[in-house]
Amino acid sequence: MFQTEYDVIVVGGGHAGSEAAAAAANMGSKTLLVTMNLQNIAQMSCNPAMGGIAKGQIVREIDALGGYSGIVSDTSAIQFKMLNKSKGPAMWSPRVQSDRMRFAEDWRLMLENTPNLDFYQEMVSGLIVENNIVKGVKTSLGLEIKAKSVVLTNGTFLNGLIHIGDKNFGGGRAGEKAATGITEQLVSFGFESGRMKTGTPPRVDGRSLDYSKMIEQPGDENPEKFSYLDITKPLTKQRSCFMSYTSPEVHDLLREGFERSPMFNGRIKSLGPRYCPSIEDKINRFADKDRHQLFIEPEGWNTVEMYINGFSTSLPEDVQFKALSSVAGFKNVKFFRPGYAIEYDYFPPTQLQHTLETKLIEGLYFAGQINGTTGYEEAASQGLMAGINAALKIQEREAFILSRSEAYIGVLIDDLITKGTEEPYRMFTSRAEYRTLLRQDNADFRLTPKAFELGLASEKRLKRMEEKQNKAEAFVMFFADTSVKHEEINPILESKDSALMKQSDKMQKIFSRPNITIDDMRKVASVETYIQENNLDNEVIEQAEIQIKYSGYIEKEKNNADKLNRLENIKIPKNFDYSKLKSMSLEAREKLNKIQPVTISQASRISGVSPSDVSVLLVYMGR
Amino acid sequence: MFQTEYDVIVVGGGHAGSEAAAAAANMGSKTLLVTMNLQNIAQMSCNPAMGGIAKGQIVREIDALGGYSGIVSDTSAIQFKMLNKSKGPAMWSPRVQSDRMRFAEDWRLMLENTPNLDFYQEMVSGLIVENNIVKGVKTSLGLEIKAKSVVLTNGTFLNGLIHIGDKNFGGGRAGEKAATGITEQLVSFGFESGRMKTGTPPRVDGRSLDYSKMIEQPGDENPEKFSYLDITKPLTKQRSCFMSYTSPEVHDLLREGFERSPMFNGRIKSLGPRYCPSIEDKINRFADKDRHQLFIEPEGWNTVEMYINGFSTSLPEDVQFKALSSVAGFKNVKFFRPGYAIEYDYFPPTQLQHTLETKLIEGLYFAGQINGTTGYEEAASQGLMAGINAALKIQEREAFILSRSEAYIGVLIDDLITKGTEEPYRMFTSRAEYRTLLRQDNADFRLTPKAFELGLASEKRLKRMEEKQNKAEAFVMFFADTSVKHEEINPILESKDSALMKQSDKMQKIFSRPNITIDDMRKVASVETYIQENNLDNEVIEQAEIQIKYSGYIEKEKNNADKLNRLENIKIPKNFDYSKLKSMSLEAREKLNKIQPVTISQASRISGVSPSDVSVLLVYMGR
Ligand SMILES: Cc1cc2nc3c(=O)[nH]c(=O)nc-3n(C[C@H](O)[C@H](O)[C@H](O)COP(=O)(O)OP(=O)(O)OC[C@H]3O[C@@H](n4cnc5c(N)ncnc54)[C@H](O)[C@@H]3O)c2cc1C
Ligand SMILES: Cc1cc2nc3c(=O)[nH]c(=O)nc-3n(C[C@H](O)[C@H](O)[C@H](O)COP(=O)(O)OP(=O)(O)OC[C@H]3O[C@@H](n4cnc5c(N)ncnc54)[C@H](O)[C@@H]3O)c2cc1C
Repeated sequence: MFQTEYDVIVVGGGHAGSEAAAAAANMGSKTLLVTMNLQNIAQMSCNPAMGGIAKGQIVREIDALGGYSGIVSDTSAIQFKMLNKSKGPAMWSPRVQSDRMRFAEDWRLMLENTPNLDFYQEMVSGLIVENNIVKGVKTSLGLEIKAKSVVLTNGTFLNGLIHIGDKNFGGGRAGEKAATGITEQLVSFGFESGRMKTGTPPRVDGRSLDYSKMIEQPGDENPEKFSYLDITKPLTKQRSCFMSYTSPEVHDLLREGFERSPMFNGRIKSLGPRYCPSIEDKINRFADKDRHQLFIEPEGWNTVEMYINGFSTSLPEDVQFKALSSVAGFKNVKFFRPGYAIEYDYFPPTQLQHTLETKLIEGLYFAGQINGTTGYEEAASQGLMAGINAALKIQEREAFILSRSEAYIGVLIDDLITKGTEEPYRMFTSRAEYRTLLRQDNADFRLTPKAFELGLASEKRLKRMEEKQNKAEAFVMFFADTSVKHEEINPILESKDSALMKQSDKMQKIFSRPNITIDDMRKVASVETYIQENNLDNEVIEQAEIQIKYSGYIEKEKNNADKLNRLENIKIPKNFDYSKLKSMSLEAREKLNKIQPVTISQASRISGVSPSDVSVLLVYMGR
Repeated sequence: MFQTEYDVIVVGGGHAGSEAAAAAANMGSKTLLVTMNLQNIAQMSCNPAMGGIAKGQIVREIDALGGYSGIVSDTSAIQFKMLNKSKGPAMWSPRVQSDRMRFAEDWRLMLENTPNLDFYQEMVSGLIVENNIVKGVKTSLGLEIKAKSVVLTNGTFLNGLIHIGDKNFGGGRAGEKAATGITEQLVSFGFESGRMKTGTPPRVDGRSLDYSKMIEQPGDENPEKFSYLDITKPLTKQRSCFMSYTSPEVHDLLREGFERSPMFNGRIKSLGPRYCPSIEDKINRFADKDRHQLFIEPEGWNTVEMYINGFSTSLPEDVQFKALSSVAGFKNVKFFRPGYAIEYDYFPPTQLQHTLETKLIEGLYFAGQINGTTGYEEAASQGLMAGINAALKIQEREAFILSRSEAYIGVLIDDLITKGTEEPYRMFTSRAEYRTLLRQDNADFRLTPKAFELGLASEKRLKRMEEKQNKAEAFVMFFADTSVKHEEINPILESKDSALMKQSDKMQKIFSRPNITIDDMRKVASVETYIQENNLDNEVIEQAEIQIKYSGYIEKEKNNADKLNRLENIKIPKNFDYSKLKSMSLEAREKLNKIQPVTISQASRISGVSPSDVSVLLVYMGR
């Protein structure tokens, strides 16, 4: 029924699976995407939004690497915000509200327009494995489909169990079946599996809310967008969100349900996402806080369905309802559906290599929530990397690994496979040592050349990026090389309460002052003339501004990263036996034997491996 | 969690449920639509098309009655065809290909914009019934929601069982769960239930087909539309379908799978739709036919997914694949998913009254596939009627029943409740005695005044219809009253090889000739002048043409219908005991006792009731 053998089979059409399928196919691999329901491709299981702090950076990295998440986020956006604009540019994080239906439909159409990519709707119930090498998949109807490699992206579906109050039932997502068979088979192959949980808030009827009691949250005045490509455009109109607050009364009402809560009565044992807690978790852990923010987010351009961000819960539905009804603006709230929690199987990601290939079975890759992460962006980026590496391996090309100083994606994967995770892992800027380097504005500079080498960026795209880079650099040089007369600059400085100049000086010096912005500098005639003559667009101007104003930080981090890279270059031989390093702590030896880090640097990041353990290792390696 | 009591709860958001919810809410009833997945509202389970022979008439009737199916069919159409244009206007049937995703989304947005209508996502697992009066529903999570009436529209979901070859598994539709609980409870209340089956063809990847080997099927050159409202517009661009044929070779390949076919090995016992048979059924029943038509229908504007109309099958997927691969143009076909059959519970509709209320439980209505019908249009029209009647009953207004001479919908419901059905019932023009009256072009004349009385048509809509009616009548009168000189008409007649006139005569006489069309008549100066002066649009002109050219047939049927209506007016007392009419045949007495017809006319249509039985009844009634 299928062609003799696919290069890559991707199991699951969520965020991870969709990116994996696109990447493998775009790299020339004959790819098949098998998913339980072709009408549910790239569903947003939880909030209708992409990006946000650290996550927005990931979306831009995916885009720079030729993934589709950025493009689809742009075409389906109903609101754009650059978060953290008041902080340094390393913290700036783009985020959109999405039209849930548009998002899924646009993803599906993008995939349909991808050559080399076939589709099949069915549940995969197991793998075909011979001599620890994957050979394909088996479906629930008993079909066997052959492939050189398989990427598993099952999300929250493996033995998914949905909880609401004291009731629970099987399901992979509200209204969808759970997937069975795969966990059991993998465990029989020697994989370790675990359980995690996550939750989602109620969806309500926007017509039943009183927005006059809430605070409107409009989008940015000058919205930007995710994709570096010019095929998408920034929004010209936007839809607002709203903000409201819980109250002590609401908390009391919620507490009434704690006895019947699967979280508190021990029915759910697995760990949920610490930084995306349920409302019951929040009022339990932060008992002194008498209110929590709620964001009321539209699910699309035209629908009246609203997502209650901040009110994730698995309390009994009557408790959810009573408590939410007491929130300002929610007096007459009508539910579309209650919140719920879901428990599902994951596989501790220390069982993976940096390529996301499993250590136990060759050609088998895991990506997304199955690796213990949470979030669309985390899932999508892993899918992209697994898809790329599956394709590279088949083409007998070198693996594609991003270091921690190159991309958040590098941090994510290195964290996962080095440290593992006991609770759903989500990305934060604080996880990145070099976050001044890993900005949302320069993901293209960092990654487009790599994408081009991989075959995921066209030459035109590369050229466009290089032109932007050159223009920005030239503009930086212009500030470094060009002087301004103090008569000309002083009125500007005066207006900003900034110390006046005694004589003319290089403009860079003035521009470096924290409170002097590009808008101030543009009042200098030669600056504005340069911009006009060189036809600089906002992206280039912003880029130059960041490079000038933050050059100190950037340089420092670059140096640190270079140091790390030197450690990164000290490779540890494959299957190295740490037991013989008796001067190392026992814990370190055990952990190192299990994780089998590839470099000294990776070894140093394993929890339980101390600096002195690293020294032992360095000595042994003759350094 | 819900308001104290709803007027109407509609269970199921398919075609029946969506129309029922809209109608009840638009009539002012506080209505709740509960469905298993709010993202799957108004899904097209099978072919992406609305209308067709007899079904197109139903869609126009729904539209005239203020239902939404016509509007949504227009907004989501990718191709329009008026079928049977070469036959008389009673046979003209509008049909569209639909964009499956647009269809569902537009329906959902229409419903969301309907006042009085709330939504809730969950499975209903049972009814609350007291003293044979319905009081609400119970959900799978154990919620109780109160209501004065409940409309069940469960479609193919009740204990749904999906078959492909020798495998079967529970499900209400591919990728969706079955619904349980309701059948068992209704049976415990004394309802009779049965099993039916239906099937669907494979969906394939349009990129894998060779259209040069097929025959293109473009839409009409001058596409029309369904809705009589001016809020929708005819298509300005369209997408083509394609046609291909099976062959003896394809049939041989299919026969290889017969042993493993659930249809032939006895695993499926229930009856499928006779007029929508599976391909295996066709080659089995029509063994002498060496080919069958296949229509390759796009699933939307942009998607590559194609629906293979005519190839419905539950043979094993490898057999489906091998056979389809041998069809011209399908050599390299790739499957998105195989065809399958589904078995589900239905309730013989003789258990219903004309209002679609059940005879056993007051306030409980059944509509759609649950009544043993098949097809979106059949389902939608029942939903509309059940929704209307549920609302009317609560408002203590008179029931709304359409007679067989007023609408296809009247024929449908009367057939169902009078004759029942053993196999999935679909509408045909041949089922209507008065099909010359029940045309697609005059559904507005027939039904808009009723919709206005019900509160489902605005006064503006009524006025618009009346204006059209008046203009058409005046135009008819113009032809009846105005003469044309033979010198003027003869050249026109000559060009059509029609007998020449000797002297001037009324234009109606000439226009009545079968081969003389309105285009010919417009060559008469006074006709064209009349059209211009009175600003007649195409709809009015076509209407007048039909009335003039078919006045003979129309009159005859009107007379017959009047006769029937006289019988229709002879009411039979409620709970009449037929056992005492000893001169009636035993079978007739039994059937009459079971069906409890409301009128003599209805009694006469019950199978097993002979004309002489009817005479006995008439005599007894004193006629
Ligand atoms: C209730 C809920 C609450 C959540 N809350 C949050 C939150 O608060 N914050 C947050 O960041 N993230 C949250 N998420 C997580 C977010 O949805 C996921 O991180 C993201 O969707 C993971 O993407 P994925 O591609 O790994 O898996 P998914 O999006 O789950 O997609 C998995 C896909 O694989 C398919 N599939 C699974 N098994 C099989 C099989 N055997 N055969 C064929 N197909 C299969 C499924 O049909 C599905 O299409 C939540 C998810 C759920 C369900
Ligand atoms: C495989 C298949 C093949 C078909 N083939 C044909 C064909 O060849 N020709 C043809 O004319 N028609 C065909 N049909 C039939 C066509 O789809 C139906 O006639 C039409 O959809 C019926 O509309 P409905 O509203 O009655 O039910 P459906 O469209 O089936 O909708 C039922 C709705 O009710 C919901 N629901 C069910 N039970 C519950 C519950 N307990 N609680 C809450 N919600 C519930 C479901 O989720 C669904 O939304 C086919 C259907 C299927 C599934």
